[in-house]
Amino acid sequence: MKDMLGRENVITSDRALNLLCGALSKKRTAITTEKIENSLGMVCAEDVVSGDDLPAFARSTVDGYAVRAGDAFGATETMPAYLNLSQEIFMGEEAVFILPTHAASKIPTGGMLPQGADAVVMFEHVQAVDSTVIEVMKPVAPGENVIQAGEDVQKGEVVLRKGRRVRSQDIGACAGIGRVMIPVRARPIVSIISTGDEIIPADEEPARGRIRDSNSYLIAGMVSEAGGIPRRKGIFKDDYRTIRAAVEDAMKDSDAIAVSGGTSVGTKDMIARIIVDIGDPGILFHGVSLKPGKPMIGGVIQGIPIFGLPGHPAAVSICIEIFIKPVLDLMSGLEESLAHRLRGVVQARLSRNVASSQGREEHIRVMLKEREDGLWAVPILGKSGLIRTLVKADGTFSVPVNRNGVEMGELVEVRLF
Amino acid sequence: MKDMLGRENVITSDRALNLLCGALSKKRTAITTEKIENSLGMVCAEDVVSGDDLPAFARSTVDGYAVRAGDAFGATETMPAYLNLSQEIFMGEEAVFILPTHAASKIPTGGMLPQGADAVVMFEHVQAVDSTVIEVMKPVAPGENVIQAGEDVQKGEVVLRKGRRVRSQDIGACAGIGRVMIPVRARPIVSIISTGDEIIPADEEPARGRIRDSNSYLIAGMVSEAGGIPRRKGIFKDDYRTIRAAVEDAMKDSDAIAVSGGTSVGTKDMIARIIVDIGDPGILFHGVSLKPGKPMIGGVIQGIPIFGLPGHPAAVSICIEIFIKPVLDLMSGLEESLAHRLRGVVQARLSRNVASSQGREEHIRVMLKEREDGLWAVPILGKSGLIRTLVKADGTFSVPVNRNGVEMGELVEVRLF
Repeated sequence: MKDMLGRENVITSDRALNLLCGALSKKRTAITTEKIENSLGMVCAEDVVSGDDLPAFARSTVDGYAVRAGDAFGATETMPAYLNLSQEIFMGEEAVFILPTHAASKIPTGGMLPQGADAVVMFEHVQAVDSTVIEVMKPVAPGENVIQAGEDVQKGEVVLRKGRRVRSQDIGACAGIGRVMIPVRARPIVSIISTGDEIIPADEEPARGRIRDSNSYLIAGMVSEAGGIPRRKGIFKDDYRTIRAAVEDAMKDSDAIAVSGGTSVGTKDMIARIIVDIGDPGILFHGVSLKPGKPMIGGVIQGIPIFGLPGHPAAVSICIEIFIKPVLDLMSGLEESLAHRLRGVVQARLSRNVASSQGREEHIRVMLKEREDGLWAVPILGKSGLIRTLVKADGTFSVPVNRNGVEMGELVEVRLF
Repeated sequence: MKDMLGRENVITSDRALNLLCGALSKKRTAITTEKIENSLGMVCAEDVVSGDDLPAFARSTVDGYAVRAGDAFGATETMPAYLNLSQEIFMGEEAVFILPTHAASKIPTGGMLPQGADAVVMFEHVQAVDSTVIEVMKPVAPGENVIQAGEDVQKGEVVLRKGRRVRSQDIGACAGIGRVMIPVRARPIVSIISTGDEIIPADEEPARGRIRDSNSYLIAGMVSEAGGIPRRKGIFKDDYRTIRAAVEDAMKDSDAIAVSGGTSVGTKDMIARIIVDIGDPGILFHGVSLKPGKPMIGGVIQGIPIFGLPGHPAAVSICIEIFIKPVLDLMSGLEESLAHRLRGVVQARLSRNVASSQGREEHIRVMLKEREDGLWAVPILGKSGLIRTLVKADGTFSVPVNRNGVEMGELVEVRLF
């Protein structure tokens, strides 16, 4: 496949993504300070460090009696340790006294240990002798049933690392150290420009020859899922000046631009030409050894990534997964973690042979089926222009560029929709 | 473990969840009509049926020439079929003519086939003889390079089934059939009531003996991830009348209520008593054979599920996963799909022996590590009161109630945070 400049430029998807990431290596969205309750799924922009020890004081982990462990050394049911009842410790109150030797203070779970106490005996190992003395029938080790001051988080410790996607558990941890605002990268704004003389708004009744805009909705949904903010800019006629004006307008307020192109070669070439003409550096690839998704265009215009997406919905879905999501992650400062990478992926056995052409990475839509012998991926046949195949599919797996198929029973990695 | 009514009532987590789901079997949130662009992750409430054939007309899937396949039968490079050039078909325009026999019309990808044409020959298999005649050098089968009218979706066909969680691909499909509004179940509103005399707001400096509220943030994040709308109602003192008033107030505008309890037995019993006293049916379980999470309380008050969560963050996280998420799914009308269930789960080998007590389901926090021989789950040691262990963990796996441990090298299912 040659582009409009006559270059032979069908490259692998890996190489294409590398070109994009290389051109954007220093491009990041702005750092903003966000309330933790709104930060779910955003990327932490600077290490979040604890200003305190957590907990700030030794706390009991059980309901029982705070003691000096040495005072109950060797205690048994037949030879209990007798301890004098000292002041009771109440939840949420500071224990301001020093526990005398051979004494015990009633303490709730979460209660603060008084000075001198180094362990807590659980209720079930204690019996009251009278209102002033208890019997302890089991020894405790020093530190038993206690969380020490600073045992959870120490002052100066990093609780949330830069580059991490914020999870609910991380938000809880930030609250615990008193950080209710944290630095995160702004969600990248992705403008979506629909083009095509045949495309009409989804809520209109199409005349014959026209079809409704569905790709801009698919793109917007996937951008949201990837942590970006989609902005559907409308439908534009297949005309150089019209589309160029739409692209230049989007450049004013977007971190990335997705052009949902028509399906024809003429439209693709026009979008490629606009990217070349705006430039700096302009087009990076036009055509990828990918099925579906071969007509994919990638470029950077004045520091802003721009994607010329294929026309078929199945191809759009795959090209967003392969090109747009990683670019949004990069711009958000995400440092990819193993758990994040594995989240949407399942292993399944392929239910039948699938042929593919060597020299091209092919993505096959599959349904998952659970059988007694495990999880199976059942390929869905159908042209990539069909929306139905996307609705039926649970996800896709890919046949690598250097293989000419996958055999029945082979284990494949299904990326879930 | 006996409850305040003297019943021996520590039950398995499965049984506890069944009690909740049984009491809520008919409870669903309201059906609302939502713009498709806002419906991502919501649950479809009624089958979405196409009112049209999609596409409404036969479309070309390539750039080429629309022909009658019979006219190019047996064509080869040395014996091409000669066809007269008929009218060109433009993108987005209705092909109003009938293609004559032995004729061909230039057509773009996505263009409408004229009456009479039943296939499209790709450009590369055609050569122009002059401005009125082309040579076709390869035969086409009838239907080749064509999407037939109704081939994607037929009028009356269900595109999106009731009970399905809406994905980006589904939104695209709805747009394609012209459905820009769809019926979905409202996201369940979950009120979060924090209790505990020792708890202070996360943005305040704790006096000694006090700790910051972190659990309400953890709960709110997990409720959002589960498709619900969290409402943090504030921190309330451990006092029957105060907490009962907070619960009754929340009942006015909530689909579910989560009480983030103190850790002490006294507080738990008070929350249980409030649920019993409000009633209808009231408390369903108090204490589960679960670690961490044993003190979990579940109930239904006047049709609204109420959860008395444990105090330790690790226990909170697990109890939300086990009890609250499935209840929110049920109330949203979700019909669980295989792909949805598998989304957050990965298989890994356990890096060392883990002991557990039979008769109790134990959830172990793990980090994932990728080694040459595959994926490993490395248990994280530490008390369930420690926030740090939650931040470090990638997820948890569970040791079933009837086992007393898992051996090194065994395959476990890790549910990712």
